[in-house]
Amino acid sequence: MDKRQLIENIRRKQSFLCVGLDTDLRKLPARLMNEEDPVFAFNRAIVDATQALCIAYKPNLAFYESMGVQGWISFEKTVKYIRERYPDQFIIADAKRGDIGNTSAMYARCFFEELGVDAVTVAPYMGEDSVTPFLTYKDKWVILLALTSNKGSRDFQFMEDARGARLFEQVLRRSLTWAGDGQMMYVVGATQGKAFEDIRKIVPGHFLLVPGVGAQGGSLEEVCRYGMNASCGLIVNSSRAIIYADGGEDFAPAAAQAARKVQEQMAVELRKL
Amino acid sequence: MDKRQLIENIRRKQSFLCVGLDTDLRKLPARLMNEEDPVFAFNRAIVDATQALCIAYKPNLAFYESMGVQGWISFEKTVKYIRERYPDQFIIADAKRGDIGNTSAMYARCFFEELGVDAVTVAPYMGEDSVTPFLTYKDKWVILLALTSNKGSRDFQFMEDARGARLFEQVLRRSLTWAGDGQMMYVVGATQGKAFEDIRKIVPGHFLLVPGVGAQGGSLEEVCRYGMNASCGLIVNSSRAIIYADGGEDFAPAAAQAARKVQEQMAVELRKL
Repeated sequence: MDKRQLIENIRRKQSFLCVGLDTDLRKLPARLMNEEDPVFAFNRAIVDATQALCIAYKPNLAFYESMGVQGWISFEKTVKYIRERYPDQFIIADAKRGDIGNTSAMYARCFFEELGVDAVTVAPYMGEDSVTPFLTYKDKWVILLALTSNKGSRDFQFMEDARGARLFEQVLRRSLTWAGDGQMMYVVGATQGKAFEDIRKIVPGHFLLVPGVGAQGGSLEEVCRYGMNASCGLIVNSSRAIIYADGGEDFAPAAAQAARKVQEQMAVELRKL
Repeated sequence: MDKRQLIENIRRKQSFLCVGLDTDLRKLPARLMNEEDPVFAFNRAIVDATQALCIAYKPNLAFYESMGVQGWISFEKTVKYIRERYPDQFIIADAKRGDIGNTSAMYARCFFEELGVDAVTVAPYMGEDSVTPFLTYKDKWVILLALTSNKGSRDFQFMEDARGARLFEQVLRRSLTWAGDGQMMYVVGATQGKAFEDIRKIVPGHFLLVPGVGAQGGSLEEVCRYGMNASCGLIVNSSRAIIYADGGEDFAPAAAQAARKVQEQMAVELRKL
């Protein structure tokens, strides 16, 4: 999916919500455990219930890989289902990969060619040749970790060089030489508050993928105040607060209701543009 | 496996070689393509041929994941085969993971509980809470990326703060507060030459996992000169130079021969201790 289409989807749906499919087998309602593939059955119901209210889905690979082979089957089925049923959804494989060139090339082929997702999250620590193999596919995206939402983000990401430039700012600046805002986005945690302003000075036109609203404590309003640009420029992810809005049999309508609530707040924010 | 046993294995085998199982379906000899699981058949033959000459195996997850569900099956079978047949081998899942706490915990459970590997490579960018979930398992190891072997390692890892401390040095120092040398190792690329001396000033007693000897151009002798400590302290990985020593039907004896050559150099280095 290209940038123009993503922006068009946001306008049409009045939403920049990404639903995080962090599906944990241990948290599924009892009824689903009789299904042949409970994780896929859960995801399918969540997607059907929320697809009108969001513009993206983000399965977190860790949740699937931790279930071994069966997890990969559930992951592939989920991606295929969304791709075929709701082709206007932007699918993000939240994989946080990053390896030497030939290895990153294997990952890129896996995610973009075999699975057909739109974007992969990539970790920057290993530098340019760990990222660029993901940039050889037309209309496919790298979402580079810049400033994450967790406590450990303070350990290294705020490290300053002699001129006061912080590591996450160096990641932004350096990566601008690898690709433009039609192929690259950045992960910026909702908990980072005013750092959004500093980030927007470096990457005014890029989309930012923003996790950490909801369970991790970030505020949608604050994210919009400091992070929005003229064409929105935000994809805000919510995982647990939506998919586990109700832990019981009514999980799908409850997820729809939770997504609706976020979408309505987003529509308010979009009207300010 | 604990540190004492790892050192004992190195002494007994006069080897600190890790064979990297970067198995690429497209590079396998034609004969294997008739096997039900060609990747596993290749790995099993490589392991049988080299196990007396090495102390560790390192399957690189990217190569397996890029084959989707079948790749995960091959990966699990490979780990199970080594674990059962050669229990003194140290198995490293080269996954370069690193995510927020609850997600890292899922990965840790997957690799250590379900698969039973000894160590996982972890990327440091997201800081402490992305690493510590891997440290809750007795005799299991985190191998943290410090200074990698690729060209892109220059992009961020050498960034200096106002006092001249480089990012990779900060990663080493900070991580010392998370675990000691009985649970943590560091990835240091063989191509980094004298940086090994600086690293040894910070982590004199730790094991270092050293990729980049062979295909990537690093020298074993140089790595030993600058990186060895009194109990060896090195696990040197070689992937392509061993497993693809011969691209044809004789791949297994050729791998054994290539591994033997490295092991003999290692025996010479170990006699210097």
